[in-house]
Amino acid sequence: MNEFELIARLRPGLAVNSSVRTGAGDDCAVLDLGLSGEFALLKADAVVEGIHFLPDTPARQVGHKALARALSDIAAMGGKPGSAVVTLGLPRPFDPARVEGVYEGLNATARRHGVAVVGGETTTNPERLFLSVALLGTVEKDRCVLRSGAKAGDALFVTGELGGSLAGRHLSFEPRLAEARWLTEHHRIHSMIDLSDGLAGDLRHVLEASHVGAELRAESIPISRAARQRARSNADAPAPLQAALSDGEDFELLFSVPARQAVALTDAWRAAFPKVRLSCIGRITTEPGLRLIDPHGSKPLAAHGYVHFQ
Amino acid sequence: MNEFELIARLRPGLAVNSSVRTGAGDDCAVLDLGLSGEFALLKADAVVEGIHFLPDTPARQVGHKALARALSDIAAMGGKPGSAVVTLGLPRPFDPARVEGVYEGLNATARRHGVAVVGGETTTNPERLFLSVALLGTVEKDRCVLRSGAKAGDALFVTGELGGSLAGRHLSFEPRLAEARWLTEHHRIHSMIDLSDGLAGDLRHVLEASHVGAELRAESIPISRAARQRARSNADAPAPLQAALSDGEDFELLFSVPARQAVALTDAWRAAFPKVRLSCIGRITTEPGLRLIDPHGSKPLAAHGYVHFQ
Repeated sequence: MNEFELIARLRPGLAVNSSVRTGAGDDCAVLDLGLSGEFALLKADAVVEGIHFLPDTPARQVGHKALARALSDIAAMGGKPGSAVVTLGLPRPFDPARVEGVYEGLNATARRHGVAVVGGETTTNPERLFLSVALLGTVEKDRCVLRSGAKAGDALFVTGELGGSLAGRHLSFEPRLAEARWLTEHHRIHSMIDLSDGLAGDLRHVLEASHVGAELRAESIPISRAARQRARSNADAPAPLQAALSDGEDFELLFSVPARQAVALTDAWRAAFPKVRLSCIGRITTEPGLRLIDPHGSKPLAAHGYVHFQ
Repeated sequence: MNEFELIARLRPGLAVNSSVRTGAGDDCAVLDLGLSGEFALLKADAVVEGIHFLPDTPARQVGHKALARALSDIAAMGGKPGSAVVTLGLPRPFDPARVEGVYEGLNATARRHGVAVVGGETTTNPERLFLSVALLGTVEKDRCVLRSGAKAGDALFVTGELGGSLAGRHLSFEPRLAEARWLTEHHRIHSMIDLSDGLAGDLRHVLEASHVGAELRAESIPISRAARQRARSNADAPAPLQAALSDGEDFELLFSVPARQAVALTDAWRAAFPKVRLSCIGRITTEPGLRLIDPHGSKPLAAHGYVHFQ
């Protein structure tokens, strides 16, 4: 049983209460606490030594990544991050200077995004450093974007370039908070998700939640330089397009908008974010499933997303 | 360097923002999100296999303990729990039935206290199960109780009985949420904390935060049957009083109130919670430090709280 199958089995039994607008299954939970005009957003994410970073990864990058992953989830809802609590599992023995470095990175990223680090829990995890960050944010009720809102006919967009993140970007990416806030301020975004499991895998999450399908245009998928370089230098590496479809930890935004907005959105984006690539990569279809269109025709996409373990 | 020294070194560098009323250093963070008349409370807590539970601990108890620890922190602020997110670090390989059992226990406890479990993160922690729970709650602004409010002359109270929790109670305790809500509704509580590091250790946290001292009356400290039994059956076990002062994971409430309220509070408590012992164990003093009064006189208390690791 893999992670997704386990989660699917656990989800129906989760306790709920009247504050829950959207529970487990989106990038963040959406909660109505009684705030005027806003929902609260709540998310936990984790990085584990040997899984998400290595023993020799610079400590500041570990702290940055731990918080930035959760920030990316807040971005995917169109939200504003507020406060974070940290659970730190320390190996035995632990190096105090390394832990201080982790916190330096975490605090620096928090300050850049106006986030307060308000405590948490420190415990022992004898074999490896384990860092979980829970993040509380808010979002205007009319700007909250779910995975489940994609509609047949929508144009599908992705920010940045995909694939090869493990070459370095996964430790240094900046979550697309400003871009997401701009999108929900100026455009009608039907659905949004951040790419952590790979384009194909995360798009499937959107399609399942929205009960729709999608067609991707192979030549429109933005492939990172890292994915191309890896393919050139290593005969066993996946083809660049395969990497862009399947590699995890891109932390880019995938979103859908009504097709008639696509051109205006693209033009306005270029003016607002001249350094961040935006690609229209396909469209949402009534027919379920995910298809890839390339010069040889249209075919069901076998590529799957990145599965964290097994 | 131990846990407390590390935390003391990290705390001054934590990022803050304008929503923070009380950051790291109390049982929960206190946040002003703009809710009318209420603060938000945020806390993360964790349980780790081999540290807080054993490989053969019944799975439901593991899930219960993971959530109940965080609920106890919400209780210590006088708060109402709302939503929880869970970070689950799964050993490799993992037993799906065990994970389902953990969630059964967690969901059952959540339902008893009106808490929603709204998602989180599942990842790999190869050697052992790691479970972190972040909990969001709320508290009326005029009922929020901090560690830092103890005043010289206050009477010191503790709920339940102390010591020997590792014999079983640490897996089955019910967090004192109802008791704490009753206390803040009917009485003026100056300071409150939940006992996780042991009476002496946690009381020192209150004294340091409040810039006061305390005297404990040895004969008034409620000693659990488990601590007495352990001392009788094991010559190497600590004396029962020592266990009540030093053992961790009692998850009882320690609080201080103006001395003139002590008698009325005790009488009203007996009527409200006839099955839960309440003990007046001493008083807050102007002179700093912690002293123990027994038939032999008053002496500085050398006993220290439970330190999670060294």
